[in-house]
Amino acid sequence: VSRTLAEHDWIARLVRRLGPARAPVRLGPGDDAAVLRVGGVDLLVTVDALVEGVHFRRGWLSPRALGVRAFRVNASDLAAMGARPVAAVVALEVPRGTPAALLDGMVAGFVADARRHRAALVGGNLTAGPRLAITVTMLGRAPGRIVTRAGARPGDRVFVTGELGHTAIAVRRRARLPALPDRVAAGVRLARVAGAMIDVSDGLVQDLGHVAHASGVRIRIDAARVPVAAACRRALGARATTFAATAGEDYELVATVPPARIGVLARAGLGCRLREIGVVEDGPPGILLVGRDGRPMRLARGGFDHLRS
Amino acid sequence: VSRTLAEHDWIARLVRRLGPARAPVRLGPGDDAAVLRVGGVDLLVTVDALVEGVHFRRGWLSPRALGVRAFRVNASDLAAMGARPVAAVVALEVPRGTPAALLDGMVAGFVADARRHRAALVGGNLTAGPRLAITVTMLGRAPGRIVTRAGARPGDRVFVTGELGHTAIAVRRRARLPALPDRVAAGVRLARVAGAMIDVSDGLVQDLGHVAHASGVRIRIDAARVPVAAACRRALGARATTFAATAGEDYELVATVPPARIGVLARAGLGCRLREIGVVEDGPPGILLVGRDGRPMRLARGGFDHLRS
Repeated sequence: VSRTLAEHDWIARLVRRLGPARAPVRLGPGDDAAVLRVGGVDLLVTVDALVEGVHFRRGWLSPRALGVRAFRVNASDLAAMGARPVAAVVALEVPRGTPAALLDGMVAGFVADARRHRAALVGGNLTAGPRLAITVTMLGRAPGRIVTRAGARPGDRVFVTGELGHTAIAVRRRARLPALPDRVAAGVRLARVAGAMIDVSDGLVQDLGHVAHASGVRIRIDAARVPVAAACRRALGARATTFAATAGEDYELVATVPPARIGVLARAGLGCRLREIGVVEDGPPGILLVGRDGRPMRLARGGFDHLRS
Repeated sequence: VSRTLAEHDWIARLVRRLGPARAPVRLGPGDDAAVLRVGGVDLLVTVDALVEGVHFRRGWLSPRALGVRAFRVNASDLAAMGARPVAAVVALEVPRGTPAALLDGMVAGFVADARRHRAALVGGNLTAGPRLAITVTMLGRAPGRIVTRAGARPGDRVFVTGELGHTAIAVRRRARLPALPDRVAAGVRLARVAGAMIDVSDGLVQDLGHVAHASGVRIRIDAARVPVAAACRRALGARATTFAATAGEDYELVATVPPARIGVLARAGLGCRLREIGVVEDGPPGILLVGRDGRPMRLARGGFDHLRS
């Protein structure tokens, strides 16, 4: 998922209105990545952009870290469907006078991360622009099942990797952005058992809201079980949980798993922490974030529409 | 090719320095599109951006025409290798307050052109940004041979489609940008016979310079034979030829063809005008634009470095 709420919906709606194409599209706009059929193989395609002043400021991270971030934001969309990156192209918009060392560092960071996945940077575009912007298109393949947002069923349990709130608390403190997690291996393993999966880019509540709507289910999250970054707890105390549940840009994975497959999950060895945080229910599509008192919590920002829907 | 001179070179150099990847890359950065091997099929990948204030101004063309232009600029890179578009993703940067109708019109123009090629818009990204920018990644397949920049050989003849200077003269006059030609069918047919091919985005002299360097040959262009847009002739008189030979953004195709295959070319039925303009020679890589007096012409802008090299 990318940061803006309605983008996929908007493009999906428009493409539907324009009628079906005759290209070999197995899954069009509206999920974390599209799926094309090429030579008998499913190829996943996703695109995401980091724009200076919108997604980052230069002081927040080194050029190399920016390149790594650009890779992981996109790899996260593939991981959320159970796929690995294979190749990428990078389009850069660069203000005049930008030091070449900044571009070199950024691309070096991107390529170093790509190499760890045996993925290749195969092309690029460089143009002048008012602010630094990095748009990455990433192609991927799934070694096993491809998981979408639409497969959550009542009774499934909800699991999330890692901890939430790391990036948002850094932004609030004007501190350096933490490195994003690499959840590609975890995504591929979760795909063996998951009914639905998505990455947490806009906030847990909002992103699970996409799963709820795509699957036609209600999802109940137990706020006390949401894994909150320690820095959030220290800084925000009692407010840390709702902050973390609505914080964007963490790029952890959240998956729904049918009860019968949870045993397999326990043996999967994800290489990261995995926490059970809720359950899928029958009901009008949406998210319930339930507090210690058993009552739905109100949220100051993010996910609010989903709570009301 | 995209507009900026050294972009592919820069990325190609960096990727080389970082060592080979283990992904199934048949052709990496440095040509009009990369070629990946997927499921036994060659998949072409290219990315290009149109940035407001750099590549267009809003008054220069309607939203729909901007969408069509974004499609054709990218399809041109595929056509230049003998391929057709199959699928695309579009990343938009949009200033706050941009009317939704502008975005709808742009995407509708893009999709309408895609449909004519049975290609699909499979995904997108929408983010806030300081200026309107449209970054398109396009995937393509070649029904026959894939043609690169590196196949020009001494003795080959040089051919160009259409006429040059249409866009540049419109920009100079602050007039509406003309629609770009659709050279996909012509590119696929030219690929049957071409030794090397490229699209004319930065100007004939500069783009043929890329072919000269990639192929290790000198290319002699007969200035009198360069097809010049009538509007250029009327506006510029005697200066029209050098203007058209260095004018960017026309997205015509230029190909080198071995003499033995010219007969096939004559019967190919490209659906557009094709003009023989020069010959490939032994010599230091570069371009000679030769005037009526048989002497190399000096150029005020564009291609100058190539002339000197």
